[in-house]
Amino acid sequence: MAAEGLGEFGRIRRFFAPLAGPGGLGLRDDAALVACAPGRQLVITVDAIVAGVHFLPDDPPDLVARKLLRVNLSDLAAMAAEPRHYLLTTALPPGLDDGWVAAFANGLAADQRRYGVALLGGDSVATSGPAVLSLTAIGEVAAGTEVRRSGARPGDRIWVSGTIGDGFLGLAVLRGSYPDLLPEHRARLIERYRVPEPRTELGPRLAGIARAMCDVSDGLLADLGHICEASGVAARVEAGRLPVSTASAATGEATARLASGGDDYELLFTAAAESTESVNRLAATLKLPISPIGLIERGGGVRLIDENGEEIAVGNAGYRHF
Amino acid sequence: MAAEGLGEFGRIRRFFAPLAGPGGLGLRDDAALVACAPGRQLVITVDAIVAGVHFLPDDPPDLVARKLLRVNLSDLAAMAAEPRHYLLTTALPPGLDDGWVAAFANGLAADQRRYGVALLGGDSVATSGPAVLSLTAIGEVAAGTEVRRSGARPGDRIWVSGTIGDGFLGLAVLRGSYPDLLPEHRARLIERYRVPEPRTELGPRLAGIARAMCDVSDGLLADLGHICEASGVAARVEAGRLPVSTASAATGEATARLASGGDDYELLFTAAAESTESVNRLAATLKLPISPIGLIERGGGVRLIDENGEEIAVGNAGYRHF
Repeated sequence: MAAEGLGEFGRIRRFFAPLAGPGGLGLRDDAALVACAPGRQLVITVDAIVAGVHFLPDDPPDLVARKLLRVNLSDLAAMAAEPRHYLLTTALPPGLDDGWVAAFANGLAADQRRYGVALLGGDSVATSGPAVLSLTAIGEVAAGTEVRRSGARPGDRIWVSGTIGDGFLGLAVLRGSYPDLLPEHRARLIERYRVPEPRTELGPRLAGIARAMCDVSDGLLADLGHICEASGVAARVEAGRLPVSTASAATGEATARLASGGDDYELLFTAAAESTESVNRLAATLKLPISPIGLIERGGGVRLIDENGEEIAVGNAGYRHF
Repeated sequence: MAAEGLGEFGRIRRFFAPLAGPGGLGLRDDAALVACAPGRQLVITVDAIVAGVHFLPDDPPDLVARKLLRVNLSDLAAMAAEPRHYLLTTALPPGLDDGWVAAFANGLAADQRRYGVALLGGDSVATSGPAVLSLTAIGEVAAGTEVRRSGARPGDRIWVSGTIGDGFLGLAVLRGSYPDLLPEHRARLIERYRVPEPRTELGPRLAGIARAMCDVSDGLLADLGHICEASGVAARVEAGRLPVSTASAATGEATARLASGGDDYELLFTAAAESTESVNRLAATLKLPISPIGLIERGGGVRLIDENGEEIAVGNAGYRHF
């Protein structure tokens, strides 16, 4: 394909090299260097997004960049790791020009400052199909203090940060649902969909408190199912305790639907009953709601229970990208 | 899109989870763990390939997987790092079914054994466009012993491993060029294009010997230009010393063309004159030709010189994916 505009090398030098941290060697070498202090270990994750599947082709490019970075930082937070670096590959169609890439890089720059991360490396290729963006994020945690999905035990309380369902509803609003919602509620839900808030302050502070943790990306019930499966336990969630925003409540959607929606990027974790005070103190310190929503039990599977103790049937527990 | 076959989670469990190393946590957690021993540092690189651009859509999937892994291992070798782990994202169109993914994973499995690396994590998404595959590779090197592109000095000898031009010619053969070439020469060139041999044994042994190094992916002259630019020096290459395979020689292509072709994945490095014996010993130990092809000089730019000392005009010095 003929080069239009700056071309691959030109885009890297102009837009991405200024984002490089010291280990990135100016994005001009074969690979990047990552130091690891004694007693620390690295935590690493990768997520890819596709135009038309995970974001809308006319979404503002800076917000696409920030969401891509943030969903990965959310995965690091879910291991109790502090974010440090990232690498990026972009496969872009000819229609996304240098202006699109400039705005995309601006979004990354803004979030680099906010989250204290820097670019280490990347690759930039052309595709005739929809844009495919893949980001590898690297964090750090004291060796052995990472929180996995497999540590939940019967008797643990189940907690979730923030509110549930906003991201899912934001996408629905963008697609034309809930036309009668107040403008401020619409705006809030769209913002939560487009620019999630990874809980990077909370995650690392849950080392030593949370026994099992993941972030809510597939939907609260599906992600809790992953914890139960990895831990060999069951979960009982009280629908009335699920934290719902004012904007979400205004849609009138059933709690079961919100808990199946996905795209929340909140932290979902279990902790022993004696950690309740610690969790509540963290919530106060960070000014972030952390809600107890149920209990871990013996057995398997996730049950959603109404105020009468009856099980609520949940149809499709979890968002699927396919 | 409706799930066909195993779907995203099914493919990960069936085909990719068996490839996971200990830090990969069975590909079932939010992120992976990477330990780093005291005194060591990690080296990390990422490369993406697109069907129709970097590989041919009907290339055997196991060979596509091996090439994707190997071009990244070549980048690690070029920093003098030993390969350890990798992460993978696949964006696949519906036409690449579970059988394609199974064969792709088989290719990875074969090369994992060969190179002593293991899968740490990944993501699998759908695209309506051509397949986009992105691989992040992680290696390890004693802290401070990595070889960068920026260390070349006037008086250094320039060396290259293996032979130059085979990968470039292999692609040309696949596209119908050189119809009169002998079948064994055709096969050899195609193999070099499809399954490059990253110099993972050589690279780490060049720590302390090479002053500047990169792998040959854009073309020998272009990649040497990168070393010159990063080091602030010039390079003089003697065309008659460029190592050419029997199969390449049979095409009758000019040396200048072979040195501009790209896709070689050989190691190109500079070393002080007093390291000549060490380089020759390494070549003998590894049974791998390592050829002296020129000298680093003061100034800037790369000159290709014929046997009469005349400069050979080089048109397009370096392959461009765009």
